[in-house]
Order: sequence, then structure tokens, then C-alpha cells
Amino acid sequence: MYNFIFQNTTKIYFGENRLGHLGEELKQYGTRVLLTYGGGSIKKIGLYDKVTEELKRAGLTVFELSGIEPNPRHTTVNKGAELCKKEKIDVLLAVGGGSTIDCTKAIAAATFYDGDSWDLVTHKAPVSKALPVLTVLTLAATGSEMDAGGVISNMDTNEKYGLIHPLLQPKVSFLDPTNTYSVSAFQTACGSADILSHIFDVTYFTATEKMDMVDRIMEDIIKTVIKYAPIAVKEPENYQARANLMWAASWALNGFLQTGAFQAASCHAMEHELSAFYDITHGLGLAILTPRWMEYILDESTAPQFKKFGVNVFGVDASLSDIDGAKQAIVCLNDFLFKTLGLQSTLTEIGIDDKNFKVMAKKACKGDVLKGFKHLTPEDVENIFKMCL
Amino acid sequence: MYNFIFQNTTKIYFGENRLGHLGEELKQYGTRVLLTYGGGSIKKIGLYDKVTEELKRAGLTVFELSGIEPNPRHTTVNKGAELCKKEKIDVLLAVGGGSTIDCTKAIAAATFYDGDSWDLVTHKAPVSKALPVLTVLTLAATGSEMDAGGVISNMDTNEKYGLIHPLLQPKVSFLDPTNTYSVSAFQTACGSADILSHIFDVTYFTATEKMDMVDRIMEDIIKTVIKYAPIAVKEPENYQARANLMWAASWALNGFLQTGAFQAASCHAMEHELSAFYDITHGLGLAILTPRWMEYILDESTAPQFKKFGVNVFGVDASLSDIDGAKQAIVCLNDFLFKTLGLQSTLTEIGIDDKNFKVMAKKACKGDVLKGFKHLTPEDVENIFKMCL
Repeated sequence: MYNFIFQNTTKIYFGENRLGHLGEELKQYGTRVLLTYGGGSIKKIGLYDKVTEELKRAGLTVFELSGIEPNPRHTTVNKGAELCKKEKIDVLLAVGGGSTIDCTKAIAAATFYDGDSWDLVTHKAPVSKALPVLTVLTLAATGSEMDAGGVISNMDTNEKYGLIHPLLQPKVSFLDPTNTYSVSAFQTACGSADILSHIFDVTYFTATEKMDMVDRIMEDIIKTVIKYAPIAVKEPENYQARANLMWAASWALNGFLQTGAFQAASCHAMEHELSAFYDITHGLGLAILTPRWMEYILDESTAPQFKKFGVNVFGVDASLSDIDGAKQAIVCLNDFLFKTLGLQSTLTEIGIDDKNFKVMAKKACKGDVLKGFKHLTPEDVENIFKMCL
Repeated sequence: MYNFIFQNTTKIYFGENRLGHLGEELKQYGTRVLLTYGGGSIKKIGLYDKVTEELKRAGLTVFELSGIEPNPRHTTVNKGAELCKKEKIDVLLAVGGGSTIDCTKAIAAATFYDGDSWDLVTHKAPVSKALPVLTVLTLAATGSEMDAGGVISNMDTNEKYGLIHPLLQPKVSFLDPTNTYSVSAFQTACGSADILSHIFDVTYFTATEKMDMVDRIMEDIIKTVIKYAPIAVKEPENYQARANLMWAASWALNGFLQTGAFQAASCHAMEHELSAFYDITHGLGLAILTPRWMEYILDESTAPQFKKFGVNVFGVDASLSDIDGAKQAIVCLNDFLFKTLGLQSTLTEIGIDDKNFKVMAKKACKGDVLKGFKHLTPEDVENIFKMCL
């Protein structure tokens, strides 16, 4: 039990006004930089100017790839990889949230592959080499700034899969909480739901025995999000709230909490189908799915952990039975996500009906069962999707 | 606030029977290995045989340096560095506790310095280069297996100082809790006191504002030690207890908890004088000093944090005044260290009198005040030493 390998090499500059170190860090990897970003929000908040000024000051040759989508596409990865090959790029600098960083990681690997980057995502071809990636983070959510993975979508085939490889671990990430001040209440709430889901889904709710210390720390990070997400929603420029959420996001999925316990991720697998078919915000899909998934798999075997979550995180009455305590925990989580954070609570509200549920459920299970805290058949997954209507 | 750099590159193999990876990891750095260890306890527990068998299986050329002292000496560092130069060692493998690992790190740096290694410890010469260090840990205590520092003693001058440099960060550490099964009740207790002190001393008790998430995690690592140290003392082969203590030790001082807050370490500075003059076990010195230090600096400004510690860790009544809550917290800590863990509670009991207190106090302050939660003058330090009699 508890056998695991832990290593996380990313260097983090945390705090305000750390970009003075950007040039020196990039220059360790070369002089030709591809700056990647999304729809232009980094220009609105003045971050684009700050970053390019630092790159200029460091005497670097800069190319740009903008317009990276939320749920980034393999076609954009292909475009980025072409640019890297053509311009002989040495190092990639992603400025943005998880989507920009994920796409940039895939570009880093695709640069050394002669073919469609989708082959790497679907493991038809292995990742053999990757350009170094540095990041400047603008959203507390996915943890991509401090992990070795990324998620890429293929809208032609309605598929969304993770690409994970040690070579994709960012070399350096700049985490300045003030760069998240302009994140909307909605995106702050979705990002927070994403952080929670990483903890719930990837190890906190698991059938495998966990190390007690790490279990406690998972609850600490959950409590941090429960405390600070509503504050950040109401007071977007609250530094404490933004700092805590940002650091919580990085630690929710950087390997530390994943030590030793089986990595389930059932809700993530189901949500990827929602995003792949309907291009919705990942955190929102997770928020809608998670309480229904808990309700669906609630039984004698899962109740003790759900109850423990309720007691330790929300102060649910410890004297309740396991089942009643678990039910109360699900109510508390529902209230937090849909009342306190104000997220939409059903797929119907965001315009999704049951039309594709059967095929989505089948895809989520990849021809098998969806493994996790409780293994789910395609029929189970379809039932959970239906509960979200 | 909260500006910090975090990076920890050490690769950890955690759990039982991981030594099958030892050869492949070492070979990344070369073929000529210096195996370092202490007084031979690794032979008693069969670990020496397991390690050397793996080294043989990997076809490595192995040299040995044994007899590394608890409170390792600069003279031993010199001896090791000579051996590395003479035998053209590529990589160091420390098998032992904090002392063996600390000494090995210093050897790694001293190999590239032509002179007395004490010059590196006292910063008369800079660390310019270091051999790679890998470790197999046998004691949950110092955290040296996952940090960039080591502490070296000079018994000629009664000095004990830390040597910290990024080049000294272990490349790989093997953490098998079963390798600590044979650690005595006394050393288990001392190691646990050391872990607690790293958290108390290096950031938990601080005048600087901390990030809430990290503060919660500090308390949970403290609670982990409070829970499992007594179990490990009573049931030395309890895997849960040994695993939790081992991982707690690594995280207490690997940089994560130190993010953002001023690093105080007053008790460590005072304890280093005790060890340097009397060669006592570091964790025991810390255990004796810490509650007295808390008592000595207790006032309106420090009481809220001491009380919070008591409330959150020991369940002290939150309705007490700050001062009364703090006093109660100190009582609880005393009880834990000296009753539950059974450590000696005074310097008198371990044969230390006040003879050298004045000179030790002056040395601890290094001609200035000893900075920390409250800054201490040499007179303050002397008073705290006297309280330990």
C-alpha cells in the first residue's frame, strides 16, 4: 500500500511583480520564443504588454500564436507545431489559463512529430521529445501550470482526451494572483468547481486506502476552496482569496495528492463527453455532474467517505448514520455549487438534452466500464447524464 | 505578501520494495558509486545487503564510506571528498538518516573544493559544483532526503552550521517505511520532535502573514505527527504510523510549507549550540527547548498564534483568553513530548549544566539578535537555556 513515485520539477514564481525573472528563465532554453495565448483577455488586463516588454528587454526573438480556444482543438495544436518547425522555435511561453497551457504543451510535443497531433493525443504515436514550456497563469482551475498533462479536443469526432507525458511538465510557471482579478464571477466559480473535482475525482473519493496525512491535506485544500471561492466571486480583487485559490489549483493536481491511491476520475471522463459534444466550460460540467454522480453511487460502501467529507468539510452532524450523513453532504455540496457560487445546476439550463447521451455514455466507458470509486457501465453513465437534466 | 519561489526536483520512490529501481536511477549519473552510511545499523536490518545486491546487479563499481557520525563532522566530509577525488566517483548514495545524508551532501560539494570543507559550511568559499546525491532513508526526521540543506559540526570549535545550496538537492530518494521499523522508541520520539520543530520553527509560528491554505496544511502535518508518533513508539512495525511519519518528515522541510512566510528557526539556532557543545541528539534538544521558548516569548503579540495551535491541534478550549489558551497549548505540547513520547524534559537530565550557556547564547546570535517570531538577544537565549535546566 501507498507505493508511489512523486516528482514535480516545475519552478514556481508566486506573487506579484515576478515577471522581471521571465527573461532570465526563458534564455536558459534559447532565444526564439513562441508566445501563445487565447482570445485576447491578456491584452485587456495589460498582461500582454508586461510580458512582451520583458521579452524585448531580454533581447528574445518572439513569435505569436493567439486565439487558442477554451477546449483547445487539435487543429490549433497542428497550427502551432507548424509555426514552431518553420520558425525554429526554442521555447514556448503560454500566457493564459488551462486551455492555453494545455494547447501549448501539445504543441511542444507535436513539433517533433510529422503528422496530425491527434495521433499523439490518441496514443497512435508516442511523445518522443518536446520543446520546453513556461507559463504565466491567468486562471485558478486546471493545475496545468504544475502538471504534465493537457486536454485536447477534436470537434470533428466529438472527442476530448488527455495527453500526459513527463516531457510536458512546465519548466517554470509564474503565478501572480492579481492576474486573476479580472476573471468573471462565472469563470471563478467554474474554476473552483474544477479544483474541487480534481480532488474529489482523482483521489479523495476512492476505494483504495489513502495515507492519512494526504487525506487530511485534501480536506484542507477543499476547505480552502469552499472558503475563498465565494469571496473571490464577490470581491474579485481580494488578494487573499485569489492567492489561496491559485495555489490550491496547482496542488490539487500536481501529483502530491495522488500519492498512493487509485486515480479514479469518473466525473472527468463523463465531463469530457459533455465538452466534446457541446463545447461547454469544463468546470461547469463537473459541477453539474459531481453531486449526481455521488447520489447515483451512494450505497453502504461509498456512504462512509461521503459522510466523512460532509462532517470534515461542511460540519455535517457526525452522529448521523453513514447514509444520512452522506445525503446531507450531497445537499451541502449542491448548495455550495448552485446557491453560493450561483452556477447553473442542470444540463437543461445550458441547452443540453438527452439526444447524445447514449453515444456519450458509451464513449466515456471506451468499450469497457468506467473505473472509479464505483465502476460504471455505459448504462450507469447514461443514467447519471439523465439525472443532470 | 506571499511572494516566494518554490521548486523541489527530488524524485521520490515511496513504499516497500522499490530498490529494484536503484540501479537504473544511479546509472543515469555514472558508474562509480560511493556508498555512504553510519554506524552499521543498515547491516543489522539487512538493508546493506539489499542495496549492495542491487548495485552489483546493475554492474556498478562501488566504494564505501562508513562510520558517518550523528552530528556529522567536517573531518568526515573531508575524508569523503578525498575518496571521491581519488576514486573519480560519479555519484553518491547515502543510506541512512539525516546525518548520513547531510554529510553526503557536503561531500558532494567538497569534492569540487580544494581545501577544508569547513570553508564551504562557513561560507568562506562558495559551493560551485556538486556530485549528484541519491538517498535511501532509514529515519523519519530531518527531511534531508527532500531538501537542499545539510548540517555539519566542527567539534574542534564547537560549531554546527547548515550548508544549503540547490546543487545539494537529492536527485532521487527511496522512502520505504519498513526501513524505519527498527528505529528505537527514543530515536522515533526524537525524530518526531524534529519534524514538529521544523514546522513550528521554520514557519508555523511567525510574525509574517501566512497563506491560509498552507497554514491549514501545517496544522494537519503537525496532527499527523501527534497521532502517529506515539503509535510508532509503541508498535514499531505499524506501517501506517511509519509511512505517515516518513512522508510528514519530508514535507515539513521541503520548501512547500515555507512558501511566503519569514523563516524564523530560533529553536534550531539554539539547539545547534547544544549539539555543537554536547553532541546530543538534535530532536531531543529541540524538544527540550521548544516549550521553554514558547513560554519565554509568550506575550500579547505571540499568544494568539500559540492559542490557535492549541485549539486546532490539541483541542484546547477556544473560549479561553489568548494568554490562557496559549498557556494551555504549552502544557499540551509539554505533555506530548515528555509524557506521551517519554523524552527527557530537562538539560540537567542529559548531563548539561549552565557552564557554557553564555558563550553558546552569544554564538547562537552571531553577534546580533537571533531573529524569529520574537527577536532574541544573547541574554534572552541564555535565559531560555536556563529554563531548560
